[in-house]
This record gives sequence, C-alpha cells and structure tokens, in this order.
Amino acid sequence: MAPPRGGGSDAAAGEAIAAPVDQQQRPVSSILIIIAMQTEATPLVNKFQLKEDLDSVFPKGAPWVRYYGTYKDLQINLVWPGKDSTLGVDCVGTVSAALVAYAAVQALKPDLIINAGTAGGFKAKGAGVGDVYLISGVAFHDRRIPIPVFDLYGVGSRKPCSTPNVAKDLNLKVGKLSTGDSLDMSPQDEASITANNAVVKDMEGAAVAYVAEMLQVPAIFIKAVTDIVDGDKPTAEEFLQNLAAVTAALDASVTQVIDYINGKCVCEL
Amino acid sequence: MAPPRGGGSDAAAGEAIAAPVDQQQRPVSSILIIIAMQTEATPLVNKFQLKEDLDSVFPKGAPWVRYYGTYKDLQINLVWPGKDSTLGVDCVGTVSAALVAYAAVQALKPDLIINAGTAGGFKAKGAGVGDVYLISGVAFHDRRIPIPVFDLYGVGSRKPCSTPNVAKDLNLKVGKLSTGDSLDMSPQDEASITANNAVVKDMEGAAVAYVAEMLQVPAIFIKAVTDIVDGDKPTAEEFLQNLAAVTAALDASVTQVIDYINGKCVCEL
Repeated sequence: MAPPRGGGSDAAAGEAIAAPVDQQQRPVSSILIIIAMQTEATPLVNKFQLKEDLDSVFPKGAPWVRYYGTYKDLQINLVWPGKDSTLGVDCVGTVSAALVAYAAVQALKPDLIINAGTAGGFKAKGAGVGDVYLISGVAFHDRRIPIPVFDLYGVGSRKPCSTPNVAKDLNLKVGKLSTGDSLDMSPQDEASITANNAVVKDMEGAAVAYVAEMLQVPAIFIKAVTDIVDGDKPTAEEFLQNLAAVTAALDASVTQVIDYINGKCVCEL
Repeated sequence: MAPPRGGGSDAAAGEAIAAPVDQQQRPVSSILIIIAMQTEATPLVNKFQLKEDLDSVFPKGAPWVRYYGTYKDLQINLVWPGKDSTLGVDCVGTVSAALVAYAAVQALKPDLIINAGTAGGFKAKGAGVGDVYLISGVAFHDRRIPIPVFDLYGVGSRKPCSTPNVAKDLNLKVGKLSTGDSLDMSPQDEASITANNAVVKDMEGAAVAYVAEMLQVPAIFIKAVTDIVDGDKPTAEEFLQNLAAVTAALDASVTQVIDYINGKCVCEL
C-alpha cells in the first residue's frame, strides 16, 4: 500500500500550543528543558550549574534523570530520558520522549517547555551543519495510516507556542521539524518529510509537542543540525562526528533564548 | 542509508517481563486491560459489565478513558486512549499506548497487564483472518538506528510474562508480534518484521511492553487478526471490513484467558 498523503501538514496543523490565559500574562517562572541525549544535556547542566535530583521525582524503574536549579529569575528543570537499563544507550525516540515529558510535566508543572536537541538538516531547504533552528511547526513522518482522518492523526501536525519576537530579536533561523523513530530515512519517510515541508528531522519533537498540547503547556523547539540528510555522508557517521561540536552551538542558542525569556510573559515571546 | 539489521530480535531479547516475587506467589487480584480502539474495547466493557470512570484518574486534557468493575475474584480496569480531541479518531499508535499504559499503571497498580487488540497477520507464517494469538515476543519494526547498540535499543525486543500453561490449556496459537506506527508496511518495515520473526503486526504492543518492563508489571499480549498483510487485499479496506467481526473472536479469547487467570498466581500461568 502506498504511503498516504494526509492533506499536507499545514492543512492538518492545529492551533498553536498555548498556555491558559492567566499563565500567559505573568512572567515565566519555571522552564522544563527536555533533551534526548546525555551529550546534548551536559553542556547545559554545566552552563546553568544544575544539580542532579538524586531523590527522583520519577517512579522506581524509570531511567529518567532530572537536573534542577535557579538561573536569573527562572527555575530550571532539565530532564533527559536516561540510559536504557539493559543496553546502556540513551533512550532516544518518541516513546521515551513522550513518557518523560508527561511525567515531568505532571511532577513539575512548568510554565514553558523547551525541547532542545540535535537534528538532521536538509541542504535543499538551506540547512548547514551547526545551524540552529527555532521550530515553526512539527509533525511525524513515520506514522502512515491510510484511512481518512486517521491519516491526519498519524501526521500529527502541531504548531509550537508562538514566538515571533524570539526569532526576530535573536535573529534565529526558523523552520519546520519532522519527527520519526529512525535515524536513517526510507523513501516513505522522505515523501512524508517533504509533505511536512521540514528543514530538519529529529526523533522526539512531535512526541513532546503531542504531550505539551495534551497537558496545555506552551512548548518551543530548538534544534541544531549535526548532519545533512540529503548530503553525501552517511547519517550515522556524520551525526557522531559532529555531535559534540554542534551541542556547543545548541548550548549557546538555548542560553540566548533563556536569557531572552527571563522576565517576560509567554505572550511577549 | 540501508536499514540496519540489528543482530536479530532473538539475540536482543531481554528477560521476560516479570513481577516482583511476592506478587508472583499470590493470586492475581487486579488486571489492567489496555486496548487501542473503542470498537475493540466495547464488547469487553459489555461482557464484564464495566462502568466508565466519570471522575477520571487521569489528568485534565488527557483523552484516556477507564472502565472498571469486578469479575469473579478479579478487579478489572480497562483503559483505552480515547479519541483525539481535535480529529475525533481513536488515539492509536505507540506514543498514546505508552502514555496511557504508564498513567494507568501509576494510578491503578495492577498485578497484570493484558494488551488486547487487532493486528495484521502474515499468511506465510500461518495466520488467517479471525485467528487469535498469544504473543511470545514483541519488537519494533520502524525504529532503525544504525549505530551499534542503539540498533538493538530501536528494535526493542522483549518477552512477555511467561504463560506456557495458558497457551497449552486454552489451545491458543502462539507467535511473535512486531509493532510500528503505520498501518501499511514499507519495504524497510517488512525487512524488520521478517528479522523480528513476527506472525502478527500491530501499532501498540512493543510500546506497552516497554512501559510494563520499566514499571515491573507482568504483561501478556492477545492479538486477533483482522487482515492479511501479505495477501491480495489492501490492508485498510480489509481491516475496516473485518474489525467488528474479529473483535468478537478477540472478546471470546480474552474472556477465556481472564477466566483461566482467576484464582491463579502469575507463576501458574
């Protein structure tokens, strides 16, 4: 069966993920940063001098790790899904990201989620290694359900919290993100990514957006390009080569964004 | 990049999802049934005369629905992920299944999970429409991460709670399940399903198994075949044609299994 084209991501996109009105009109006081890999998390943990929560807010058995601290006027929690208890690798992908996002929001009641991480970029859309994008729309590219309306559910297009001032004042690149559970890209994935009009692809964003919308927490997405998907180098090799260096660029942009948020309401972003 | 073959699912399979020893040695008293679609859930809700929980144990915004009641010596909770609040279709797939499994286990502390539902079957492996399988192993087929060890994490092979007596005494078909977020099957999915040695494919099982293992709740999987993936008919059409009829077979088998469990410890299954 051919992969369905669910009407295009723009047609399917819901409302932007918005906070309740009362939250929008007071300065953000608590930020939840969700990051998939330890290598991506460590520079930010160091930058904001966060401490590890050794008496976990998460249930026994969950490998999820929380770091916390205060930075300027902001309470910052940074969570990553930890290492797989059997295999020892970072718990990447949509299921882990959704679970840790859900559990962290329930435990910590943040005003704002920032999902930060590395991503593959499409040079045909203007992406280069080391570029950092503020994401204007998210969708899935590997949930093909060729039944009317279920097709749109599978694509799961969502808009992040509206942040026109962040993009303009910090001069960040802006583009769409497509999420799937594979590091590589099959022809079916590629067709869906094209339909999603994405400049970057990751393995978590759209799942975090799903949870954020469900629990009504505004969410923004910052993705740094480690590898060029439509380039000549194998994705896995390029990803591993650039991971450490690109996290420095990610670190710098996340810090810029958090400095910008400090003292502002969500509606001022 | 070619899809990786992560060393085969059997090599990657962890230990069976087991309950703590004290739970294994007393009769099961509380069962959590997790079902993805309303059409699949309704016959069991009626069969066990379950009531809907109108004062939800789940957070505001989550569409998840719980039914509960007592059947013989068993407390039964049945949860399904509900309808998408924007699109109105059942919240199928791994992210929703993982979230509702996590939230339900946290809220209800069941002794045993039964993930029941419909699935596509492979006639080359002996499956026919209406067959009901007790699942002997689960894995994902759409999480390709071609980096050593991450590849095994992506495949995510797990063994359900060991139930040799259920299979023998109830004369159920036994086989492996492969899970992915698409109703259709790409060539890459097909290669992974073959590597997973699966007789049936669904959209939730391996995600439920992941959560069950994390939270140390024994889980069993019962899947009824609605459509033949390697047959002549389009999957979506065959699935929709057979969904109602096959849920009757699923209903009968789940009832048989629950009757069998009543009064027994997990270690007697």
